[in-house]
Amino acid sequence: MTLNYPNFSFDITHKDKSGARVGVLKTPHGEIQTPNYIFCGTKAAIKALSPAQMIEAQTDIILANTYHLMLQPGADLIEKAGGLHKFMNWNGPMLTDSGGFQVFSLGEGTMANEIKGKNQGKHDNKSLISMNEEGCVFRSYVDGHKIKLTPESSMEIQRKLGADLLMQFDECTPYHVDKDYTARSMEMSMRWGDRCLAEFERHDNGAQGLYGIIQGGVHSDLRKISAEYTKDRDFFGTALGGCLGGSEEEMETVVAASLPHAHPDRPVHFLGIGQMKDVFKFVRLGVDTFDCVIPTRLARHGTALMKGQPGETINLKNAKYRDDHTPLDEENRVSASTEYSKAYIHHLFKAGEILGMQLLAQHNVATINRLMREVRDAIQAGTLDSLEKEWLS
Amino acid sequence: MTLNYPNFSFDITHKDKSGARVGVLKTPHGEIQTPNYIFCGTKAAIKALSPAQMIEAQTDIILANTYHLMLQPGADLIEKAGGLHKFMNWNGPMLTDSGGFQVFSLGEGTMANEIKGKNQGKHDNKSLISMNEEGCVFRSYVDGHKIKLTPESSMEIQRKLGADLLMQFDECTPYHVDKDYTARSMEMSMRWGDRCLAEFERHDNGAQGLYGIIQGGVHSDLRKISAEYTKDRDFFGTALGGCLGGSEEEMETVVAASLPHAHPDRPVHFLGIGQMKDVFKFVRLGVDTFDCVIPTRLARHGTALMKGQPGETINLKNAKYRDDHTPLDEENRVSASTEYSKAYIHHLFKAGEILGMQLLAQHNVATINRLMREVRDAIQAGTLDSLEKEWLS
Repeated sequence: MTLNYPNFSFDITHKDKSGARVGVLKTPHGEIQTPNYIFCGTKAAIKALSPAQMIEAQTDIILANTYHLMLQPGADLIEKAGGLHKFMNWNGPMLTDSGGFQVFSLGEGTMANEIKGKNQGKHDNKSLISMNEEGCVFRSYVDGHKIKLTPESSMEIQRKLGADLLMQFDECTPYHVDKDYTARSMEMSMRWGDRCLAEFERHDNGAQGLYGIIQGGVHSDLRKISAEYTKDRDFFGTALGGCLGGSEEEMETVVAASLPHAHPDRPVHFLGIGQMKDVFKFVRLGVDTFDCVIPTRLARHGTALMKGQPGETINLKNAKYRDDHTPLDEENRVSASTEYSKAYIHHLFKAGEILGMQLLAQHNVATINRLMREVRDAIQAGTLDSLEKEWLS
Repeated sequence: MTLNYPNFSFDITHKDKSGARVGVLKTPHGEIQTPNYIFCGTKAAIKALSPAQMIEAQTDIILANTYHLMLQPGADLIEKAGGLHKFMNWNGPMLTDSGGFQVFSLGEGTMANEIKGKNQGKHDNKSLISMNEEGCVFRSYVDGHKIKLTPESSMEIQRKLGADLLMQFDECTPYHVDKDYTARSMEMSMRWGDRCLAEFERHDNGAQGLYGIIQGGVHSDLRKISAEYTKDRDFFGTALGGCLGGSEEEMETVVAASLPHAHPDRPVHFLGIGQMKDVFKFVRLGVDTFDCVIPTRLARHGTALMKGQPGETINLKNAKYRDDHTPLDEENRVSASTEYSKAYIHHLFKAGEILGMQLLAQHNVATINRLMREVRDAIQAGTLDSLEKEWLS
């Protein structure tokens, strides 16, 4: 079996001393420079932003979540619409995940607690009915009906959704399980990876590229095995998944134990991770793309991502912005940042106006895109350390 | 005392047999063709749309509500920001109302019940504490503190807000009061009008134009007196206000009893009225501008204004649109209408995505602007009757 992804490519054009790399990832819907950020359009929509507003914020690539879309409106409907790109009017590169993460860990919830080890038990998603070698059965949060998800059906659904970059189906191992559980889970994810590859190849028409996912929890020896597994298979890209530990240091150790054993020429995606400090830390370990819901989620709570601010953000709901008539951020090349004052955005949140979320969402997306542009430039110029100081001050 | 509004003008360029007229209304922030529609940006924001999205929907003019803005964020803050235009980043013509309507009738509520006579009592706004010749005292819905609003303070606040077109302070007479009450109320509104003119003139620097408001409830003889009052004073424009009756026929009678006695060369604004059928009916009676919250309010409930649909609308939440992959409205020159399918918008509302409201709001605004363009063309071509049949089918 050989998959060669003729319509895809990844070229690393520059590498700095730290291991950070600049590249070009080509897909049938256009190419992106890396490192880059993949914004979450969970239910086939970026929260509070139209595709035109995303483009004005210099966005290159977005993702949608298989789990949410298989439940509503369903993969068949999106296929009938001509695929996700047409359905949601996004013509650039797009990624979908496998659906597994939400099934196993969080139902409709967030990714952050799980991958950062903040959940206390095993799978705590009450909608999960059963899981075994075949796959898993869970209950829809939309209408309560039972749904089976397997490596094969995840591939089928992702094929119907029609994104450019797909993820293999895997079990997202929780934190508070022992090493034996983690090892057995990782081995099953590897067998599921092979089934995904087989199913993917059966229908491959060159339109999509499949990522394998490195599992293994916080155990370096398991991470190495899993990384080597992905390297030895015909995946187009490599993703970092599963539990990464309970501290920043542990997360760094896990990534450092994984990527040296992954395929050196393939694009590396870090699933669900994307604070500014993460970007600086993990590009140095070889990560090429990030995704996280925070840019749009923070916006809905009145928080703006800002260069050089403690904690990476300011909260526009704070009373000190009531009378601050300076632009939100003059250095950000997007109307939401330059044409509206902090006082106006403060007012919009006080008045309960949706426009406040829209403006901050566009500002946050533009800020992250600016960060990624500056990171790419700094890697090429050898100035990543000083750029990090400017951003994280 | 003479006010001559050197930076404003209104030229009627065409009149058809019915009395419908086409004109050009010039303000310091640009000119608009009439008949036209003034979209409600109540709290200094169009609900779910940015100024750029309003312009993409071919919007010429918007309004903001004095009542809401005097409570939050306050007129002084907006003055410090450089006025409403700068504060909210809208550079075109803008109107503010006097604040009186909400104080007298509805607190934070809607205009429609009051002007259409659907409220059962006198002023039913529990926040109104007192009203007399001087003005009125009410309680802020934002923080409960007592606020006095008078003709003079309404002018002062509207001057600070800095819109192009202002409204005199008046009492919005309820429906279920007797003729004596209505007459006394109207006479007080006329005295308030004189106080508004005097206060306006004291600070006039040519930047704003003041409208007088025709009151008189459903009584034709009172409407005539009130209309003649506005004609005899140095107002720039004339507005139709107060209770218009409990039926469409009564509303038509009231307007027909008012406008023949108003100044024939001044722009006529109809406060709070703006269904499609109203536009066709009242342009024939000489109305030049309309305003109503329905384009954006309907959008938030999943309803799209459509040409040639029974009831003027379709509801995208209806299950029949689940699988309808045709564009929302191919004839509407705006991305929200042409680039998204009914199935996608149906999905967005099912999924609770804010983007659904944004797209429908932009579609509805663009639909109304298209209606107004076609109405202007039809008046000039003498084809208003056939256009009405196309739209209201």
